[in-house]
Amino acid sequence: MKRLPGFRDFYPEPLPDGEAWSANVRKHIFDVWHEIAEFYAFQPYDGPPLEPLSLFTAKSGQEIVGQLYNFEDKGERAVSLRPEMTPTVARMVAARERHYKKPLKWYSIPQLFRYERQQKGRLREHFQFNADIFGEADPAADAELIAMLIDLLRNFNLTAEDFVIRLSSRNAWQDFFNQNGGDESKAYDFYQAVDKLERTAPEESEKKFQALGFTLEQVRDFIDSAEPTEELQAVLDNLAARGMSDFVKIDYNVIRGLAYYTGVVYEAFDRHGKFRAIAGGGRYDQLVSLVSGGKKEIPAAGFAMGDVVLVELLKERGLMPEIPGNIEVYALVEDETKRPPTLSMVQKLREEGWCVDYPFVSMKPDKQIKRALEVGAGFTVRIEDDEFAVLNYFETKQEEKVPFGELGNRMIQIICADDSE
Amino acid sequence: MKRLPGFRDFYPEPLPDGEAWSANVRKHIFDVWHEIAEFYAFQPYDGPPLEPLSLFTAKSGQEIVGQLYNFEDKGERAVSLRPEMTPTVARMVAARERHYKKPLKWYSIPQLFRYERQQKGRLREHFQFNADIFGEADPAADAELIAMLIDLLRNFNLTAEDFVIRLSSRNAWQDFFNQNGGDESKAYDFYQAVDKLERTAPEESEKKFQALGFTLEQVRDFIDSAEPTEELQAVLDNLAARGMSDFVKIDYNVIRGLAYYTGVVYEAFDRHGKFRAIAGGGRYDQLVSLVSGGKKEIPAAGFAMGDVVLVELLKERGLMPEIPGNIEVYALVEDETKRPPTLSMVQKLREEGWCVDYPFVSMKPDKQIKRALEVGAGFTVRIEDDEFAVLNYFETKQEEKVPFGELGNRMIQIICADDSE
Repeated sequence: MKRLPGFRDFYPEPLPDGEAWSANVRKHIFDVWHEIAEFYAFQPYDGPPLEPLSLFTAKSGQEIVGQLYNFEDKGERAVSLRPEMTPTVARMVAARERHYKKPLKWYSIPQLFRYERQQKGRLREHFQFNADIFGEADPAADAELIAMLIDLLRNFNLTAEDFVIRLSSRNAWQDFFNQNGGDESKAYDFYQAVDKLERTAPEESEKKFQALGFTLEQVRDFIDSAEPTEELQAVLDNLAARGMSDFVKIDYNVIRGLAYYTGVVYEAFDRHGKFRAIAGGGRYDQLVSLVSGGKKEIPAAGFAMGDVVLVELLKERGLMPEIPGNIEVYALVEDETKRPPTLSMVQKLREEGWCVDYPFVSMKPDKQIKRALEVGAGFTVRIEDDEFAVLNYFETKQEEKVPFGELGNRMIQIICADDSE
Repeated sequence: MKRLPGFRDFYPEPLPDGEAWSANVRKHIFDVWHEIAEFYAFQPYDGPPLEPLSLFTAKSGQEIVGQLYNFEDKGERAVSLRPEMTPTVARMVAARERHYKKPLKWYSIPQLFRYERQQKGRLREHFQFNADIFGEADPAADAELIAMLIDLLRNFNLTAEDFVIRLSSRNAWQDFFNQNGGDESKAYDFYQAVDKLERTAPEESEKKFQALGFTLEQVRDFIDSAEPTEELQAVLDNLAARGMSDFVKIDYNVIRGLAYYTGVVYEAFDRHGKFRAIAGGGRYDQLVSLVSGGKKEIPAAGFAMGDVVLVELLKERGLMPEIPGNIEVYALVEDETKRPPTLSMVQKLREEGWCVDYPFVSMKPDKQIKRALEVGAGFTVRIEDDEFAVLNYFETKQEEKVPFGELGNRMIQIICADDSE
């Protein structure tokens, strides 16, 4: 019995013969994501992991189907595991936006899926932090999102030397395309060619651009000479006011391949150039209209950051969080007559909020101590008599008799005294 | 564009025209689940939401397929969205158990799926708290799980008057079945008939039992007269030592329908009898062996609690958690010249861990105040000059000039002073 190819098991800790993934690392990453989103006053939301296939083709065209984990369900509906969150949130906002004061600031941490037949060994699922602002067309909303992206990365101890947000403008690219006689029906092909420019051989890019009525030189000159547009300058000024200038630069190599971007676009990159983009986003003012069949017009902007590149980057920089074991207290059971009062003590400590473990069955005292050390407990505690327990602090080998009711307070005192030394 | 039938959208707050569900309520429930699991020294894990169909049929037989959200993937694999977590965790443990000291105490909060053609209007997904202990055959492990289940429910302010854990023993039922000449090949049908006894007309139950060589009276007498088995007495004593006797009772009506239970079984019920079981579990010592093709023998026990019945129960009892808005501070922008220093102040407060919002674009002062009240901010703050901000506490209408660097401390002082009054 094996899991499906491209899916991950999350064991509590990384295994010696396994990946860096673990449920504890994932929980830590999610906790940071939730916390920063909260500081930025974003609200959580979520949608179904399975959606009608048409939701995704409406946004990205039929060509997306080759990359989807799609199938026909028992009710003969064409459905797909979600490959991204944006269509779902656009659907949700279109359905209920009348209930909300704008702007909306929403975030989610969905698991996403894809299935490309050719690409064996590639993950078919990942988790992604998604943030969107609906109902605000001003670049102030783009800046708020970019600031949050910077703080999300900083909170994993990444610095301006580790990453940079490359800022660009789909508007500027569209103007360039139109002013140089681009054929509107081929705009998507052009954006795709620019998007892939850095990863494509020059001769091949030259061929692509010439087919669209451009030269590679012309495109490169535009990238090299481009000045910030008004909206990009507004974003830069806004981030400067927050002291975040070191984390961003204008870079017109970024364009975001997908058809639906309409304004400021950006990607977060490893400064050492080793990894794929860490995160990316931009403005998509037409998307809600597209998903609602033209019924709702709501400006929108957002970004997404996956867990896979983030963990690869943290691992490479030696910044993988060390997750301490969660067990704080190990209760020893000297002999079985002391099991009932031990259980009573364990219960009281847990009710006070201590993370407590103990042996389920009779075990030799030295094996119990060994187990306590293995699970990383700071304290052991054992029943002495009807009133007292013996508390032992591994760090200092301090041992003392403490009345049951005082155990929690005493442990806090010991930890604080140790911390302040 | 609509979501699929049987799936839920989770908006940030419950909507006036919608369900009690919301992303904030879900997050609160998950936070409690994580916290209690941690106090009990359980470790998180997770597996793929999609598994080979054979994982589920190996455990539950082909008859389960009619209830599964199963399909054929693009690689022509028979796969299914997971209907329960136990087969996945048994697979994971069987694969890597050599890396771990026993017993393992693991928990997970998966989203689960089912698809029954007939049942329109029923949810096709839900979230479930799952906890398992692997590698400990003693009833002490069952008692630990039941104690955690009790604390999970207590932490939503449910009391011994709201719910009770009905304890039973599959071993006792098996002995009864065997001692009265039951045919082993029909044991599953017998367990199913007992499981449905309370929801089935007596004549129908009588017919079912007679087909299996029993009478309804015989079964009822066993239920009425049954004494705790040795293992059940051990569980009762263990829970009594924790002060939890009020939350459990022996009740042989409970048997758990599925084939694989082997020892102590239990279900948590609404004392008022209004809802389906809130949670259920038991011991399944053969499951790892079943899932590993007989390669590993590891005793196991666990339980699961879904989000749907829990929320229905909390709603009915008026115990739905009130989730306060997460915005603590609303920064006012008096005029646009003050936007840059306001952004700087917002950034500093967020870095200190305050949840801060502010208007993205120019807005009349009274509308800003209105917005601050709507989002539930406790404080407004606005730039006064190069050194000072004006802090306003809605609760007391207290307004004062505070140096930028002192804002965080001052807010803590004000909140503490207000709390202690």
